[in-house]
Amino acid sequence: MLTNTHSVGVVRDAVIAWRVRKGKPDPTGYFWSLPVVAETYDGDLNDINGFHVLPRHVYGALERAHGGPIAEGNVGGGTGMICHDFKGGTGTSSRVVTIGTESFTIAALVQANHGVREELRISGVPVGKLMPLSATATPAPPKEQGSIIIVIATDAPLLPMQLERLARRAALGLARTGGYSGNGSGDLFVAFSTANPGTGQAAPATVRMLGNEQLDPLLLATVQAVEESIVNALIAAETMTGVNDTRVPAIDHQELQRILREYGRNASPPAALTQPLP
Amino acid sequence: MLTNTHSVGVVRDAVIAWRVRKGKPDPTGYFWSLPVVAETYDGDLNDINGFHVLPRHVYGALERAHGGPIAEGNVGGGTGMICHDFKGGTGTSSRVVTIGTESFTIAALVQANHGVREELRISGVPVGKLMPLSATATPAPPKEQGSIIIVIATDAPLLPMQLERLARRAALGLARTGGYSGNGSGDLFVAFSTANPGTGQAAPATVRMLGNEQLDPLLLATVQAVEESIVNALIAAETMTGVNDTRVPAIDHQELQRILREYGRNASPPAALTQPLP
Amino acid sequence: MLTNTHSVGVVRDAVIAWRVRKGKPDPTGYFWSLPVVAETYDGDLNDINGFHVLPRHVYGALERAHGGPIAEGNVGGGTGMICHDFKGGTGTSSRVVTIGTESFTIAALVQANHGVREELRISGVPVGKLMPLSATATPAPPKEQGSIIIVIATDAPLLPMQLERLARRAALGLARTGGYSGNGSGDLFVAFSTANPGTGQAAPATVRMLGNEQLDPLLLATVQAVEESIVNALIAAETMTGVNDTRVPAIDHQELQRILREYGRNASPPAALTQPLP
Amino acid sequence: MLTNTHSVGVVRDAVIAWRVRKGKPDPTGYFWSLPVVAETYDGDLNDINGFHVLPRHVYGALERAHGGPIAEGNVGGGTGMICHDFKGGTGTSSRVVTIGTESFTIAALVQANHGVREELRISGVPVGKLMPLSATATPAPPKEQGSIIIVIATDAPLLPMQLERLARRAALGLARTGGYSGNGSGDLFVAFSTANPGTGQAAPATVRMLGNEQLDPLLLATVQAVEESIVNALIAAETMTGVNDTRVPAIDHQELQRILREYGRNASPPAALTQPLP
Repeated sequence: MLTNTHSVGVVRDAVIAWRVRKGKPDPTGYFWSLPVVAETYDGDLNDINGFHVLPRHVYGALERAHGGPIAEGNVGGGTGMICHDFKGGTGTSSRVVTIGTESFTIAALVQANHGVREELRISGVPVGKLMPLSATATPAPPKEQGSIIIVIATDAPLLPMQLERLARRAALGLARTGGYSGNGSGDLFVAFSTANPGTGQAAPATVRMLGNEQLDPLLLATVQAVEESIVNALIAAETMTGVNDTRVPAIDHQELQRILREYGRNASPPAALTQPLP
Repeated sequence: MLTNTHSVGVVRDAVIAWRVRKGKPDPTGYFWSLPVVAETYDGDLNDINGFHVLPRHVYGALERAHGGPIAEGNVGGGTGMICHDFKGGTGTSSRVVTIGTESFTIAALVQANHGVREELRISGVPVGKLMPLSATATPAPPKEQGSIIIVIATDAPLLPMQLERLARRAALGLARTGGYSGNGSGDLFVAFSTANPGTGQAAPATVRMLGNEQLDPLLLATVQAVEESIVNALIAAETMTGVNDTRVPAIDHQELQRILREYGRNASPPAALTQPLP
Repeated sequence: MLTNTHSVGVVRDAVIAWRVRKGKPDPTGYFWSLPVVAETYDGDLNDINGFHVLPRHVYGALERAHGGPIAEGNVGGGTGMICHDFKGGTGTSSRVVTIGTESFTIAALVQANHGVREELRISGVPVGKLMPLSATATPAPPKEQGSIIIVIATDAPLLPMQLERLARRAALGLARTGGYSGNGSGDLFVAFSTANPGTGQAAPATVRMLGNEQLDPLLLATVQAVEESIVNALIAAETMTGVNDTRVPAIDHQELQRILREYGRNASPPAALTQPLP
Repeated sequence: MLTNTHSVGVVRDAVIAWRVRKGKPDPTGYFWSLPVVAETYDGDLNDINGFHVLPRHVYGALERAHGGPIAEGNVGGGTGMICHDFKGGTGTSSRVVTIGTESFTIAALVQANHGVREELRISGVPVGKLMPLSATATPAPPKEQGSIIIVIATDAPLLPMQLERLARRAALGLARTGGYSGNGSGDLFVAFSTANPGTGQAAPATVRMLGNEQLDPLLLATVQAVEESIVNALIAAETMTGVNDTRVPAIDHQELQRILREYGRNASPPAALTQPLP
């Protein structure tokens, strides 16, 4: 679960409570849970000390979890995010990689709440320097003080040690868009695989794995998916006025396209703009 | 804060809420908090899925925090602990070390919820084999499935890297009493220093540190304080009957002293027995 | 010391032998040394299994070590490097950062032996895709199989934990030029400070440190210096024909400048070209 | 390979040179090697700055490597070791563990060069305090300044992450005999499995693994095998007079047995004494 900095506790315990209601102890009668809940700070736009996230919001998120396209922008934990001093939020992206005769998906999900304006680059173009902060934000943040959560998911059969290698590559995708993990950052990278389900706990198991020398396409796909997820978070986010009338503008799509064209990029509208999620 | 596995969330958020009530944002107006809350599992003795820990319990613990002797045994997060299949709990111990002309204190606090009976040793005596499980516990736990939290506190001026070295030595004290950190263990070791208060955040600072070559007495004191803290947790704990009428007996003090004498140890009653805490 | 993969041993022991010749045991009479020697693989251009690095080369490097500008390109351990399928080598760069009323230098040194052509980007421009591999290299490497060593040096007073944070940012500079740390990479990042000399071993010390909240300029400077060091390694390197007549071309400066201009970059000749090192 | 502190380089490169002579590049024609060589300091008994270890000693060790019992005491890298201020050296021990219907071996090998006299305990008996240093060593070491290398080998099918957990338990075995990893320690723990040979590099593989919940016997066996290995290193070592006429006495077997009996241990002669290795 992803939420804001001061709601980690309520979200964590609610996940356990929800499981208690829905599930049963494991076959041994032993029942415990250590949910993974990550946070970024949304106190510029959210009344974070009002503690507005309640268990029922968590139950709702769990009940409504579904496959298929994921909502991006001002949704969920991403609602109050600020990214490179633009409105940020949730972003996602994926790559399909063929290894031998098989195809595997590498997907990234980010909760993007990091970055200073001047360092932002998109497709390598120094967009941040060309869309300076002074004209768009109130108040001007003094420095990089946010964080990003990056989740990498794959169906490739990877061992824990290999997944850890994927997680480390998340930082490289972050760097491509100008993130430098300032002092305040508590950037979190986590990776998991849906392969080999249900193995490795109570009994010997036979686990499928890719060879280490086959990992390069997955490592590169991780970097690319993270890079694109951050851009998607920026593109999908919408201007927000939050607590204390703080207003954080979304990145201007037309201006961004104009700049990208000027710098030699083919800047057709991203799918996120032409095919809005239902 | 230390609590049980399924109450980490409520305790964490309550610490923030308490600070919000009591405190003020930092001078920059920026206000956020990442409390440290650790857990061990007490579901054998506690109705852990009843979620009985409430914010008011946390506020009470914070309000009543004080200097001086620390309560041991069936208190706080240690209330429902089981250690080497005896009743466990909270334990503490300290050493005063002289380095040059100065004295420093190394203190350990444990929440002891780990260990199998057969492996327990006290002062090196194989107590666990001599006080076998069959006669004392219902039901017999199938295996090592608990954990221990170990907190090391000192007033010695140590850098973060040096404190990390202290934290690693906690495992060595655990080993001396027969802990082997079974698969289920989520053993947590944390160390902090009260020296150099208030430095190192917003401005250049001059920090006092001990030389690395002076650390040996502190490293050894850490091992000893942890070893003794675990024994103290066992000694101070009292027999408890908990949820589902599960009864976990405390270690028998007379029998323990008899065994220690038999194995050549001077087994006068520990101070914890002759000077009970108020 | 930086060398090739199969010469780490001879270099390491030669450093100790040189110190034995030059130095004396420490005041306690206790004398031991654990030199830091890092490696990248140069077996495509170097007869690596001929073991041509000898102790006298190490002594020479130590004797001739000096302050001031550092030679770049095909020198030292960087001699046989290949970077993004161009001739690589040693590169360096630095930034001067003002914090409060003081100036500090962050310097990077890289031994660049990593990267695939297609991923290379310089100043964000996808140079690699525009200077494809087929026309320039024999034989075509099948995949990313190299590594990079990145050394960060500073005179800023930082604690070990703060230096570790700098070292982690090295990866972000690597990412900016298109590195993705493929499976074969054994990328090594190390950081050290020249501040607080001679403290922290045998006696209590007073150490100067910057506040964590002052680190942002140093973190960003690290990313920038690493990015520029990699470019400098590519620019300074010269075409080489090595073992088995393998020829690795340097990047074409005119073509690179043409591409950068085409993509809107101000592409005046880098200082490395107009001010060759003596 | 295990050697002394100042010979790591020559041993490392000699392993590569030996492989070059004996072997061939891998099928891709790509040939490189990163041997693992660990060290402890033997400069009290060995003329460590004479650099007496030569490549031919390494070739000999590789040529004569064999299965079956391993020599203990003053052999190989263990020759000049000092352990708890007694003569130390190489020690080994193993456990056979049954999991389900299968048996697996956990073996430890130590190069024991650590510990102060006062802390030594054997089978939990405070042997070190009862065999004080003053009577046996010249000169008296001022403090704990050695290290131990611990290698854990198993044929159990474990993933890298599981092997890392075994390696961490090595510290617990060290603690049982009184090691506390003083400031000078560079204690190294490494674990490997001989199961699943040849998998995981160039192609997808099916890997066998034990379930995490089955690991407890292996974790405990690791602790026990390390504890016994250290004792075996002490028992097998013989009094040595080394460089500068420094004499380090072996532990006195009769005195040790007397003390163990006095403290209630059944002290029959260890197998190492009645069945010397051929």
